[in-house]
Amino acid sequence: MFRTHTCGELRLTDAGKEVTLSGWVQRVRDKGSLLWIDLRDRYGITQLMLEEGVSEPGLLEKARQLGREYVIKVSGTVTERSSKNPQLPTGDIELVLNSLELLNASKLPPFTIEDKTDGGDELRMKFRYLDLRRNPLRQNLALRHRLAIETRNYLDSKGFYEIETPYLIKSTPEGARDFVVPSRMNPGEFYALPQSPQTFKQILMVAGYDRYFQIVRCFRDEDLRADRQPEFTQIDCEMAFITQEDILNTFEGMARFLFSKVKGIEVGPFERMDYATAMRLYGSDKPDIRFGMSFVELNDLAQDKGFSVFDEAELVVGINASGCSEYTRKQLDSLTDFVKKPQIGAKGLVYVKYNTDGSIKSSVDKFFDEAQLRGWAGRFDAKPGDLMLILSGKAEATRKQLNELRLEMGNQLGLRDPQVFKPLWVTDFPLLEWDEASQRFYAMHHPFTSPKPEDIALLDTDPGKVRANAYDMVINGVEVGGGSIRIHDRGLQKRMFSLLGFTDEEAQNQFGFLMNAFEYGAPPHGGIALGFDRLTALIAGYDSIRDFIAFPKNNAGRDMMIDSPSPIAQQQLDELALTVKSDA
Amino acid sequence: MFRTHTCGELRLTDAGKEVTLSGWVQRVRDKGSLLWIDLRDRYGITQLMLEEGVSEPGLLEKARQLGREYVIKVSGTVTERSSKNPQLPTGDIELVLNSLELLNASKLPPFTIEDKTDGGDELRMKFRYLDLRRNPLRQNLALRHRLAIETRNYLDSKGFYEIETPYLIKSTPEGARDFVVPSRMNPGEFYALPQSPQTFKQILMVAGYDRYFQIVRCFRDEDLRADRQPEFTQIDCEMAFITQEDILNTFEGMARFLFSKVKGIEVGPFERMDYATAMRLYGSDKPDIRFGMSFVELNDLAQDKGFSVFDEAELVVGINASGCSEYTRKQLDSLTDFVKKPQIGAKGLVYVKYNTDGSIKSSVDKFFDEAQLRGWAGRFDAKPGDLMLILSGKAEATRKQLNELRLEMGNQLGLRDPQVFKPLWVTDFPLLEWDEASQRFYAMHHPFTSPKPEDIALLDTDPGKVRANAYDMVINGVEVGGGSIRIHDRGLQKRMFSLLGFTDEEAQNQFGFLMNAFEYGAPPHGGIALGFDRLTALIAGYDSIRDFIAFPKNNAGRDMMIDSPSPIAQQQLDELALTVKSDA
Repeated sequence: MFRTHTCGELRLTDAGKEVTLSGWVQRVRDKGSLLWIDLRDRYGITQLMLEEGVSEPGLLEKARQLGREYVIKVSGTVTERSSKNPQLPTGDIELVLNSLELLNASKLPPFTIEDKTDGGDELRMKFRYLDLRRNPLRQNLALRHRLAIETRNYLDSKGFYEIETPYLIKSTPEGARDFVVPSRMNPGEFYALPQSPQTFKQILMVAGYDRYFQIVRCFRDEDLRADRQPEFTQIDCEMAFITQEDILNTFEGMARFLFSKVKGIEVGPFERMDYATAMRLYGSDKPDIRFGMSFVELNDLAQDKGFSVFDEAELVVGINASGCSEYTRKQLDSLTDFVKKPQIGAKGLVYVKYNTDGSIKSSVDKFFDEAQLRGWAGRFDAKPGDLMLILSGKAEATRKQLNELRLEMGNQLGLRDPQVFKPLWVTDFPLLEWDEASQRFYAMHHPFTSPKPEDIALLDTDPGKVRANAYDMVINGVEVGGGSIRIHDRGLQKRMFSLLGFTDEEAQNQFGFLMNAFEYGAPPHGGIALGFDRLTALIAGYDSIRDFIAFPKNNAGRDMMIDSPSPIAQQQLDELALTVKSDA
Repeated sequence: MFRTHTCGELRLTDAGKEVTLSGWVQRVRDKGSLLWIDLRDRYGITQLMLEEGVSEPGLLEKARQLGREYVIKVSGTVTERSSKNPQLPTGDIELVLNSLELLNASKLPPFTIEDKTDGGDELRMKFRYLDLRRNPLRQNLALRHRLAIETRNYLDSKGFYEIETPYLIKSTPEGARDFVVPSRMNPGEFYALPQSPQTFKQILMVAGYDRYFQIVRCFRDEDLRADRQPEFTQIDCEMAFITQEDILNTFEGMARFLFSKVKGIEVGPFERMDYATAMRLYGSDKPDIRFGMSFVELNDLAQDKGFSVFDEAELVVGINASGCSEYTRKQLDSLTDFVKKPQIGAKGLVYVKYNTDGSIKSSVDKFFDEAQLRGWAGRFDAKPGDLMLILSGKAEATRKQLNELRLEMGNQLGLRDPQVFKPLWVTDFPLLEWDEASQRFYAMHHPFTSPKPEDIALLDTDPGKVRANAYDMVINGVEVGGGSIRIHDRGLQKRMFSLLGFTDEEAQNQFGFLMNAFEYGAPPHGGIALGFDRLTALIAGYDSIRDFIAFPKNNAGRDMMIDSPSPIAQQQLDELALTVKSDA
């Protein structure tokens, strides 16, 4: 037997017990006649004690051989500590050893196994098994497990079935790139890994399963941005005989349940905002509503006053930063530099300070008199002590720039506390997005999204104006998930594919099974998919998902630990009837 | 709103309520002045009623347009039925309609949506969304969902974390063939889909996660046998600081919990049998112990009596079929034909009838006298009315043949009731298997399995004799899962790879990350993996797993519904730097 207890379990009430523990040596403190070992496992740390002349002969020498991360099994007597450690649940006791067995040695780890480690990203990924020993990662994966369990139990209690859909499916090159899997039994043919189980969950609705969910891996062969992974996990859900309202209520309920159960936080009812409003007031379809600073438009007040920058702009729009009128020249210059960064792309920044003494000072005093500026302040609802920040230019681009500035001001003012959660439904997304480069429409959500019934007539006259029954769950400016009411009519689905530039043959070839299914009694249905990696990170209060995935890949799509991808044997290629191009 | 209730919900206590239902038309019975519709959804069937002159004008005409599988929404009054249907939970009531809305029409399904359908296998797979509407499949998937939920909650309650391991891993051509995934970002390199998360779960033990599980998809590119799928689901588990005994107890506990919770059956403590005994007594490493008929060896009694078939045999071995002494000539011939089938391969079958009148009659009366045959009967513990069936030849082959005959007799005698469950642990498997063709050892379980400590010395002298700390969970003759205590020492793991014919370079290249991990404080650990598709089918009392998978593939690895695998676009191949060989 390796242990009677874990390293997180013993308390003062256990004093006097003879116990056995196994775990890793976190540290050894050797004071000569006394020696302490911190023994660690998943459950905690227990202090072990050895004393010269008291402990059995040889035990101390054995203990002195131990290095960090050695694996040992020890037995001893639970004893009250003289100097207790209130930081540690086991801090009232120590184990006075009477035996110590080395189970496995350890080389010196290339970085410290501490909450704040000295290891760099690449090293930590290569030695992921050591990084995963650190408390923060252990807590992240424990949280992830807990969230998965609670999500499943919640959906189960609401009558959802978890139904596994296949991973070896069919390549449908719409949207992101598929990972493909060559078929040995069908040479020259390929499976694809699912970007999501979208069509299968719709098929399950046609099959009458009524309420489906799955916590499921999805795959996208994209050029990886900082926080993207080629494989990621979704909470994927679909319901039949529902309206958009039913779906919003169900998954708002789920999210509130998770926050309450796992985090002990009541987030309250979700706010709702349509896409057009979100873009107008926040310049983003995923506004962070933990703070205000919504956009104020000034065209009527600020144009035709001789300031050509504004006069030539499609939109003059700003935000009011409360209490920032004392920003220094340097701070203001730095904000100007911020909006002028290439990835943001503004040409400049106009500011108006409403000083605490009631005076007004702006960067455009040459063009606007005080009365005019006071008019702006009125529009902003600004008070003495406030700072108005104004951008101008093409409407869409300017709103996006101002969104970045608003978020930056939120950061600077500490208005984006990761432990405060403000969820929001964004609704009524456009159905289609026009792509200038390819001169065609793309589905904003995906090709299976239903137009709003009242907008269907616009499909012929002005497709870009058609709104979809589509919605995103946004928390703290992060798109946690999105979904839509689906098309369940073969004719409308065909028309949609045609709008998206599919020939009838392409549509039939790729999605024929779904359109055929729609002819055999498809019920009205809709659903949602939530990013599980993202949701977990968000609930923990983190930005990056990487430390919420046990074995993530780096930005080149490489698993640094197992060193994959890698070449395969010629025999494997031969069996698959494939040749790698020689210049590859 | 599509419904106030489901089609399985309304009872007599709801009589008088105005309700709305949505669902599929199961059938329409039109009696002229009266018309009934059976409306179906996942939850049940509710009878709808319309009456000429009573129902609103036009409703009956509308109802008469409905075909099977049409999707409708109806409202009406819950009314007590005059002729109740006790088979149906809703059988006391019907819904007297006051409105009917067609939500979607349906073409005539190519087979009936009934418990016993008229559709053939291929047709049902092509129209899987229709097949999935049938009760038996719905019940199977509901059971699967329930088992997954209960499995997770059980393991969670025992301190296991579910941790997701990657699907894009590295090809390790030991064992079955991998499915591979070309990497676009690393041309000429490939990921592989996991045959199991084996190395990752061991890494998680090295990382200190202590108790891991995952209900996870696994992939094997094998030539498919009747009941194999290229992708299948495992309950994958690993524990640290445990002995084999801890693992057997934990997962015996889990299985007993599942049978009790989901099936209401107490299966009791598992029997245990070592591999050598299983092979000797049942000729199988997965004996069906729902019935006896264990093997009886006769070499000492039956050899050297002048019957050359026995004299030349390595083994003479038989079973006693209780109460079968009245088997006719035809029945006995048919058993002889059975064992002589090429896939079984016996040369012949010897029988001894212990007749109810006490007389003895055998097929070898020429060679053995009655006293000798009575001696055999004594060895078999046979009673009047029994039939002894005896095979002979090479020991291993003969035991396998007799295993088949034993199972066949179990079937014929009705001793294999699918609703009776007799679980068994088979332990102490050999570590290695010698392969004559390639003149090398293969790992019987996998290369990470630990030899029994007391057998380690044999690794040098007689590797084939080394027993492993490996175990299978067998229920009713089905291998539900298997596992082992793992090697956690780099040196022993290296030696194991070398025994299996790996060069040091190959071992390091494929499994270096694991052997490196073993150098940084790997704890003793072990685990098990259970086939979830198989377990679900078994618990439901079925042999085949196909109807327990929502979207299975056929024996050619093809998804008939979506028609996959399929060719991909030239652009996709180009991006992957791949060419399909022209003769493919």
